[in-house]
Order: sequence, then C-alpha cells, then structure tokens
Amino acid sequence: MSRPLPSWNDGPTREAIIDFVSRVTAEGSTDYVPPAERVAVFDNDGTLWAEYPLYVQIYFTLSQVERLAEADPALKAKPAFRALLAHDLKALHGLPKRDVFEPAMAVHAGMTVEEFRATAQAWLAEARHPKYARLFTACIYQPQLELMDHLRRHGFKVFIVTGGGIEFVRTVAERLYGVPPEQVIGSSTRATLELAPATAWVRKLPELGSFDDRAEKPVNIALHIGRRPILAFGNSDGDVAMLRYTLAGEGERLALMLHHDDGEREAAYDRQFLVSPLDEGLDKAAEYGFHMVSMKHDWGRVFA
Amino acid sequence: MSRPLPSWNDGPTREAIIDFVSRVTAEGSTDYVPPAERVAVFDNDGTLWAEYPLYVQIYFTLSQVERLAEADPALKAKPAFRALLAHDLKALHGLPKRDVFEPAMAVHAGMTVEEFRATAQAWLAEARHPKYARLFTACIYQPQLELMDHLRRHGFKVFIVTGGGIEFVRTVAERLYGVPPEQVIGSSTRATLELAPATAWVRKLPELGSFDDRAEKPVNIALHIGRRPILAFGNSDGDVAMLRYTLAGEGERLALMLHHDDGEREAAYDRQFLVSPLDEGLDKAAEYGFHMVSMKHDWGRVFA
Repeated sequence: MSRPLPSWNDGPTREAIIDFVSRVTAEGSTDYVPPAERVAVFDNDGTLWAEYPLYVQIYFTLSQVERLAEADPALKAKPAFRALLAHDLKALHGLPKRDVFEPAMAVHAGMTVEEFRATAQAWLAEARHPKYARLFTACIYQPQLELMDHLRRHGFKVFIVTGGGIEFVRTVAERLYGVPPEQVIGSSTRATLELAPATAWVRKLPELGSFDDRAEKPVNIALHIGRRPILAFGNSDGDVAMLRYTLAGEGERLALMLHHDDGEREAAYDRQFLVSPLDEGLDKAAEYGFHMVSMKHDWGRVFA
Repeated sequence: MSRPLPSWNDGPTREAIIDFVSRVTAEGSTDYVPPAERVAVFDNDGTLWAEYPLYVQIYFTLSQVERLAEADPALKAKPAFRALLAHDLKALHGLPKRDVFEPAMAVHAGMTVEEFRATAQAWLAEARHPKYARLFTACIYQPQLELMDHLRRHGFKVFIVTGGGIEFVRTVAERLYGVPPEQVIGSSTRATLELAPATAWVRKLPELGSFDDRAEKPVNIALHIGRRPILAFGNSDGDVAMLRYTLAGEGERLALMLHHDDGEREAAYDRQFLVSPLDEGLDKAAEYGFHMVSMKHDWGRVFA
C-alpha cells in the first residue's frame, strides 16, 4: 500500500484530512455520509494554483488590455484598467479584488463562450509565471492534486468555487485538476443567445452577472450545486463565508484554510495582500473552526 | 439480453435513439464523442412528467396562496395570483408561462433553501394529480426513465433544464429520475447569505434571478454546464432554443420533441395550450432537424 497524500507531511493537518475522509465513508459509522452528499469545494487562486504577486487571470488580462482600450475607451477611466495599461502591478495591488477583476471580466465582452475559451487557451499554452519561471499552468499545487484525487477515490464530487472568471477557470480545470466544466463555479458576465439558421451560440455581454467572492460563494453553491458541501478549502477572507457555510451544516464537516507562509518555495503573505487578504480568516480560525494549513510545514512539495 | 428501452415501441424514433447512442459511443467511429462530452439535457414539465392541465408546481402554489396573500397583499393585483386565489384554472390557462410561474416563485420568498425544500417535500408526499388520480410524483413517464438510464449506462451525464423552480425540481429529481441537484438547472430567485455565530444559511429573496425558459435555457446551460449538450429532449416552444443550440454544435447531435397526442392515456394538446404551446416547434421541426416523438405511437406505456 502506498502512503496516501504523499506530498503532505506527517502532522495534525494530514491526519485530520485522512481521518475525516475515513469517518464519513465508513459504512455503519455515525459520521457516515452517503456518496451523493460528499461534496467538496475548493477555491482556485491561491488554493489550487499560485495567485501571488497577482492572479493568473490578471496576467492574461494584461495581454488583452490594448485591444480592450481600443474597443471601449471608457475603460481607461477605471483605476484597475489604468494600472493594467501602465503595467503598474504595484497600483493593482492596492485595489480590492472586485475592481481588479473588472477588466478581466471585460475581456469576455462580445465574445462567444467558445471564442473566449480559445483565446484563453492560446495564451495559457505559452504564458509563463514571472516569478516561478514556468508555465502558469505548471504553478498548480501537487498536494492539492493528491487531495482532490483522494477525495474522488472516496466517492466525493469535487467542485471549484472561484472568484476568477468561470470561463477562464473552465479552460484549464479539466486538464489540470480533473474537474469538469459543470463542476466549476465562478464569476460570470451576463450572456445572450444568438440564433441564426443552422447555428446558435451564447455570447457574453459587458455586464457582470455574479462576482463569486465572499457571501456570494455560498449563494452560488446553493444555486449551482444545491447541496451544502461537507469539505471546503480556501486561502483568503474571500473564502471565509464558504467555509463557515460548510461547517454550519449538520454532521461531520471539514474546513481548511491554506496559509501562504513559505517565502522560500512559494510566497509568504496574508494580511498585507490587499487584493485578497487573509485577515479575518487568521484571527477567527479557532472561533470558526477552520483548520489552518501551513504551506511551509504541511506540504513536503509545493508545485506539481 | 433484454431489449433496451422496453417501453418504447419499435419504429423510427426508438431506432434513431439507439442508433445515435451507439454511434457516439463506438470507439474509433468518426461520430465518437468522449464520455466527458456526452451531455444530455431534458426539460421537466411535459417531458419527464405530466404538465397538463397545469404544472405540478402550480398545484403546489395553489396550496400556498392563502399564506402568500396574507404575507404580501400586493400580490392580489397580479392576474395569475388572482386566478390562483379564485382557483380559476381556466383563467390561468390563458396566461403566459412567465406570469403563471410568478406566484410559484413568490412561494420561496423569505425561506431558506432547506425550508422551501421541506415545504415542497411535505406537499409532494401526499398531493394527488386531479386528472390521473395518483400522486403527482407517480405522473412521471416510464419511457423517459428508461431513456435516461440507457444514456447513463452509455457514459452520458443527464441534466434537467426546466422552466420550473430549480429548488422545486431538485426536491424530487434525485429520487424520481436519478438526477442529483447539481444536475438540475431551473428558474430561480435571487438569494442572500445569512451568517450568525455557529450557523449560516442561504435565504431566497422575493426577486427573480433567472426565468429559465426559451433563450434563457441555452444561456443557463452555458453558465451551469459550460458544455454544449449533444442530446436534448423537450416538448414545447420553451425548449426550441435549447434544441437548436444543441443541434448547432459540431458532430453528431440528437434533438427530440415530445408531442402530447395521446388523449386516451394522457392528454392531447399542442398549439392551444397557451401557457406553454408547442407551435413553432411543430411547424419548424423538419427545418430545425427536430425528431418529433409521438406519445401515442412511440410509447408502449406512459406512466411509470
């Protein structure tokens, strides 16, 4: 028998995960959860792949800003867009996540779902992370791949619930994480159907549908999944509501919060990452019942 | 070997279904579709269970109107609500589907997801169809249960895409059809998260989020599934856009439209069912490439 979760170091975190999974899957146990109700939700940015110094999708948006500025000059009045145009990542850093993602959602405007995915796919095939000198798609966390596999092998259905654009994450989720598009929930623009003889497509509109962050995550979980998860994994205050919603259900639950405390192998940040801080989540972890995961101590390996 | 789709009569419809499924699942064939892309979508009312003379959810709403009228007297000004209060089904019949469903969505207002489901569940456990003298939950179509099973056994993922309320249909979809909540897409209200120490719930708001009918069905398919279906099954003009969207993808596709032409075993209606007519769907079936399914001729048995 090979050791489960091989990239997780021995210690209370790995033990808590393995213990939780065996308890909810042990038939006859009082903690038993039927397979249909074994729903696990993972945040994406900073939980499944690197988000520091900035989100992958923001680097993608950077590659599109000139085109966007031409298409809609009014965008230049927005602080996040101005910062992007000037490639001023420092200024972006000081803005809230919702503002930072606004130009990212504008990339969709006027595109069909298929066109947007093709554009994102082409960029992701070649674009490299400025800090880790590897493809962005190679900045995914090995321990999380193992955890998602462990859960699936125990009858869990794994969902991604991301503040990032639903289409952007769907472009990679199946290939990188084994999570199919119908199990990705994210921020989205409104869209419209266009019908023509013998063809039909869904076109994205320049209007936000849902910004899937904080309290909106549980609301979208209720809409898309319709079941309260029994395991949730996040890494910032944007995930606090999702973790609390998960824990508030009846029976056994597990809520994990990844702490980026590994400046050597990845990055060390929390409260001061203004785009998406881990602040309340740090202060209230014990009160809320979150299990803090230390990248430095709990992970034997970081990237896949 | 038992005969697949036993409640389907021999003929071109049964043949078209069996032939489609074997072609898209035959490895090496040019029509082959990988399992992950085998997405099938079914309408619910009139496609999976009886909708005539009125939707199951409207009968449920009838049981709630007195409570609603007390909670919000302004509702009495709405024609559909007035008709419901007067139990005037004839008047309801003349109103468009969106108006008829408005009071149905109002039932959710102020309830948590769990409260609404419990209310619907309790009603469904006992309520009987006025025409078929059996539980509403027994008015599901046997041939469709067999078709959904046939698809799942061939690696398809089956989704319901309904104009009905997403929570209402989720109350029964898993038990009746084997379709889990995360594979049900429907009309929905907006909702909000409420957090309190040690508890958290999602509460439905008295505001429509999405009316999942006509062009909105493909838009919601793009949002919830993120993949274009390869098989779609409907029964009214509310499904025309979904069927056309399905057929407009590349490769092999199948779009089926159930015609309620069996006044003896169920009901015979199409254009004159003003709430949700089959009109354009009848006239343009050939042009659009829909396969018309005759309840009378194609189904050896109707109810499960």
